[in-house]
Amino acid sequence: MSKQILVLPGDGIGPEIVTEAIKVLAAVKDKFQLAIDWQEGLVGGVAIDAEGVPLPESTLAQAKAADAILLGAVGGPKWDQLEMAKRPEKGLLGLRAELQLFGNLRPAILYPQLANASTLKPEVVAGLDILIVRELTGGIYFGQPRGIKTLDNGERQGFNTYVYSESEIRRIAKVAFEAAQKRQGKLCSVDKANVLEATVLWREVMEEVAKDYPDVELSHMYVDNAAMQLVRAPKQFDVIVTGNMFGDILSDAAAMLTGSIGMLPSASLNAEGKGMYEPIHGSAPDIAGKEVANPLATILSIAMMLRYSLGYPEPADAIEAAVKQVLADGLRTADIYTEETDTRQVSTKAMGDAVVAAL
Amino acid sequence: MSKQILVLPGDGIGPEIVTEAIKVLAAVKDKFQLAIDWQEGLVGGVAIDAEGVPLPESTLAQAKAADAILLGAVGGPKWDQLEMAKRPEKGLLGLRAELQLFGNLRPAILYPQLANASTLKPEVVAGLDILIVRELTGGIYFGQPRGIKTLDNGERQGFNTYVYSESEIRRIAKVAFEAAQKRQGKLCSVDKANVLEATVLWREVMEEVAKDYPDVELSHMYVDNAAMQLVRAPKQFDVIVTGNMFGDILSDAAAMLTGSIGMLPSASLNAEGKGMYEPIHGSAPDIAGKEVANPLATILSIAMMLRYSLGYPEPADAIEAAVKQVLADGLRTADIYTEETDTRQVSTKAMGDAVVAAL
Ligand SMILES: CC(C)[C@H](C(=O)O)[C@@H](O)C(=O)O
Ligand SMILES: CC(C)[C@H](C(=O)O)[C@@H](O)C(=O)O
Repeated sequence: MSKQILVLPGDGIGPEIVTEAIKVLAAVKDKFQLAIDWQEGLVGGVAIDAEGVPLPESTLAQAKAADAILLGAVGGPKWDQLEMAKRPEKGLLGLRAELQLFGNLRPAILYPQLANASTLKPEVVAGLDILIVRELTGGIYFGQPRGIKTLDNGERQGFNTYVYSESEIRRIAKVAFEAAQKRQGKLCSVDKANVLEATVLWREVMEEVAKDYPDVELSHMYVDNAAMQLVRAPKQFDVIVTGNMFGDILSDAAAMLTGSIGMLPSASLNAEGKGMYEPIHGSAPDIAGKEVANPLATILSIAMMLRYSLGYPEPADAIEAAVKQVLADGLRTADIYTEETDTRQVSTKAMGDAVVAAL
Repeated sequence: MSKQILVLPGDGIGPEIVTEAIKVLAAVKDKFQLAIDWQEGLVGGVAIDAEGVPLPESTLAQAKAADAILLGAVGGPKWDQLEMAKRPEKGLLGLRAELQLFGNLRPAILYPQLANASTLKPEVVAGLDILIVRELTGGIYFGQPRGIKTLDNGERQGFNTYVYSESEIRRIAKVAFEAAQKRQGKLCSVDKANVLEATVLWREVMEEVAKDYPDVELSHMYVDNAAMQLVRAPKQFDVIVTGNMFGDILSDAAAMLTGSIGMLPSASLNAEGKGMYEPIHGSAPDIAGKEVANPLATILSIAMMLRYSLGYPEPADAIEAAVKQVLADGLRTADIYTEETDTRQVSTKAMGDAVVAAL
């Protein structure tokens, strides 16, 4: 029985970058004789256009049946005026919730060859390698009650609920502690425990779970300070664990420290290790269809998928090595091109082909 | 009748830096013959130690009677184990709420003389001058219901409520549009309207208020993207307006872009222009009492106070000019000292004295 991968290209640059990633997947399948297969599905704006909803029943069924999911990106101005329940983002949020993909791993790694792309001084970011573990199916993203209501005095009021239960915190804590064990053994939990009760409980549970991981050094930081410290001295961090909303903000800030968000993959895992893999960048509608987008984040997402959900560490290593090789060879898509000598600008397709060749 | 200022030194480095700021205040009072007076009060940890609560009734009464408040900083490890309702931070939050200081102005300015202190490349931050307008008395900081409860299955759950009414959004919008009118005329409203209903209403009201300010160009940005853009290209921003929680995070990130948070003042205003003024940095317990803290953020807070709450723009300008003068003269406290030629490291007190002399 071969493992099944659901491929969801999505919107904007999604289809272009996914095409290159699938080329790479086909190449490692061949080379390593992997028992894997894939089929495509619809999510986001393209699903709205085709079926009227961002997450069709058929896509959800495919996703539940699959062993892993590769997603390009969703969203774009075309669907921005729709009410919230019908927007492309709901396709993504629906998949996360329905599959209980609570463990979101977002590495922020600075590739030595791309050091110049960062807006930070080289000495501040050289060698940067942070892993942000973001809780992805709880917190204020999914809390009830929520909505917009009219008050007695006639004015409207918008409200959302930030909520975490002990078990939700415990399971993401375990993911984070285990990740820290495999890295430098340092975990920083980010909260706002001086203001928000929901995060007071978060901190307590983190302390409790820490007892099972004596080899990991746990620290706590308020989210405002964490945002500062990421700018001031990002290399102080190894693994950061935080809730859905703070994780959304901090992981994007951390990614941007590298200057090359076109390079960064992510994994969203459930309790059984089934996962959805996607580049951390968005659908970039402004450059869609122009064949200039960077496919490397999606290609590296394939590597994460092989490693975390499909049990194939060797081809994962091979893909990562091939990506380093093409960077060392001087190939750059527009987003990471800085006019350095010995580099040249290439298209989305040329970059994908180069990775396949390097394999 | 002279105007009354309540001075709340607070904890940690608070007393040291406030001492210097008051020296400067006394100097401008003399020089410009200002009709002002001040008295001291207790808030935060020192109030807990003296009276058992972070915001004593007497302090609140003084604050209500005053025309403006100068605050040093609150908090420290000594009080970190107290339950939330009794912590030093509650003194600060209580003052904000009781006085309805909803308009928080947080400038992030890079002083040319301190360009090297930033961790960002000079070309990215040179000339940086952003104003963050943060809503300060609503949102998830004060929303009800909140707390930690036990669910039917026996596990605990922590919860907070993110809530904004139209009128709360409208009044902070006006503050932000007016600030933008006095600057470059560009306002970026930050929300998470693709996920949070509370911020869908936020965006709607911003659009509505925009009609009254045709000379201001309004744009919207999701908070995760804003965190990225602050790192990628901070000079794209003029004024940013956002809610309490996002404002807490983004204003600290923006401040750190300058590399010198010891330089940044803030104002928290109510509808009548009464305000509380404080440095954006915290109480820094690790360096408290050592006379190395930077008093300039507090001194610049005095300038903001004179300008916004007391109606004395001239001495405000004089203080800001004096601060620029001492920087140009090469004086640096430890936090902004970078061993450049023509600079020398000075104590908290020496820095305060130098500003007075420059006046
Ligand atoms: C598209 C959006 C709903 C999503 C999120 O906020 O989680 C995105 O920003 C992300 O981080 O994956
Ligand atoms: C001390 C804390 C409660 C406060 C806040 O979160 O508002 C501080 O971080 C600030 O930004 O003034």
